[in-house]
Amino acid sequence: MSAQPLLSPEELEAKLRQTGAELYHHRHRFHRRLHTGKCTYTEVQAWALNRYYYQAMIPIKDATILTRMADSEDRRQWRKRIEDHDGTGNGDGGIERWLKLTDSLGFPRDYVISTRGILPGTRFAVEAYTEFCRTRSLLQAVASSLTELFSPAIISERVTGMLAHYDFVSKDTLAYFSKRPVQAKRDSDFALDYVKKHAKTRAEQNSVVEALEFKCSVLWAQLDALWSAYVDGAIPPGAWVPGTHTLHDRGRAA
Amino acid sequence: MSAQPLLSPEELEAKLRQTGAELYHHRHRFHRRLHTGKCTYTEVQAWALNRYYYQAMIPIKDATILTRMADSEDRRQWRKRIEDHDGTGNGDGGIERWLKLTDSLGFPRDYVISTRGILPGTRFAVEAYTEFCRTRSLLQAVASSLTELFSPAIISERVTGMLAHYDFVSKDTLAYFSKRPVQAKRDSDFALDYVKKHAKTRAEQNSVVEALEFKCSVLWAQLDALWSAYVDGAIPPGAWVPGTHTLHDRGRAA
Repeated sequence: MSAQPLLSPEELEAKLRQTGAELYHHRHRFHRRLHTGKCTYTEVQAWALNRYYYQAMIPIKDATILTRMADSEDRRQWRKRIEDHDGTGNGDGGIERWLKLTDSLGFPRDYVISTRGILPGTRFAVEAYTEFCRTRSLLQAVASSLTELFSPAIISERVTGMLAHYDFVSKDTLAYFSKRPVQAKRDSDFALDYVKKHAKTRAEQNSVVEALEFKCSVLWAQLDALWSAYVDGAIPPGAWVPGTHTLHDRGRAA
Repeated sequence: MSAQPLLSPEELEAKLRQTGAELYHHRHRFHRRLHTGKCTYTEVQAWALNRYYYQAMIPIKDATILTRMADSEDRRQWRKRIEDHDGTGNGDGGIERWLKLTDSLGFPRDYVISTRGILPGTRFAVEAYTEFCRTRSLLQAVASSLTELFSPAIISERVTGMLAHYDFVSKDTLAYFSKRPVQAKRDSDFALDYVKKHAKTRAEQNSVVEALEFKCSVLWAQLDALWSAYVDGAIPPGAWVPGTHTLHDRGRAA
């Protein structure tokens, strides 16, 4: 087997974009269902409840990466991710905006924040992500954030699709997504520059692509678990049961 | 809310047995399918391929617990688990016996051992288990092994059911299971005594039950992922595709 040649930064970027085109969760059947109005009210509830855990763990994941960055300027840039999610005070930040969505779907905040009702598959996937960022190389930890290269497109499709198809969501309840594309663009520009600059061998370049593949599998596995439990109806013991733990249940699309 | 009273050791054991009766994966629809002869050949292949990773990580998990035990006698007892899985030489041990099963199902050993084809849901669940044993209290780490209280019954049901229904398995290819009930009984006797002795407050007793619930969810999530990919047919990108990576494919039951 001959050694693989070093890729140019542009070739590495092309390989990363190709990886996303093939593996990012915009291709998952749950998202097609969600964006085309086929989801029931309870499926949207389950999606929002489970994804809360992913949102809530993002600042923990980013703080884990911060602990590993030796360079002040890198940390300054990375810190913005934590500020975006945690906000600058009560009632601000991405997590808070996600809770506005779960509010609108009838969940009490303490139930959502407790994460008592999430699927084990959600928990294990999200924790694998944090663990990856703690134990792999810093280069791979940074690279695993590169799914954000692809999030503006899926968010645009999601917001348009959900507003068109579900009367129980509004621009207000989807406020989380209105902020994300600009933030994601800024963050993925930084991360893409970082990996293009710091991956100096082909082995390191391959490790960057592998980190993105891993992260795509983290997102994909969450939707697999969601489909199995709430579309296929095989809810694992202990996970949220539709019709419970809600303050109100409009169920217009159910 | 009044404080919960301390349970007697017998009451704690009863609570653990009740937890297993409700949450252990003998109740999962994949196992019902497997044991009653409803699985296709490729479903059995996928089950064996994925569960290899769980088997292979058991000694790593147990070594993790060993690093945390201060008492020599406890370590001597716990060490047996590693010996059971790794054996005393080439061609011996539980992992080797599991590979005899994957051999018989047509998988090359290097493919199985690489774990390249396993489901992300399998990987995340198994790693959550090892991580739990690294980061939680030693009491919880020990308690998470207590699913072995329930494994002799499921193994007996599995071996009987699989031998009766599948012509592509034999006592020889199921050799892994012939050794396990005696080992599991010895191990779960030790772990049950350990938690009954060391859980001295109601909070510790509750943490023991919680650890068993967690472990049941680790096993359950693996079967959810298997069902979604190979019964429902939604194979995630990168996971093993039936008909590939096999030296032969009898497929008699497909």
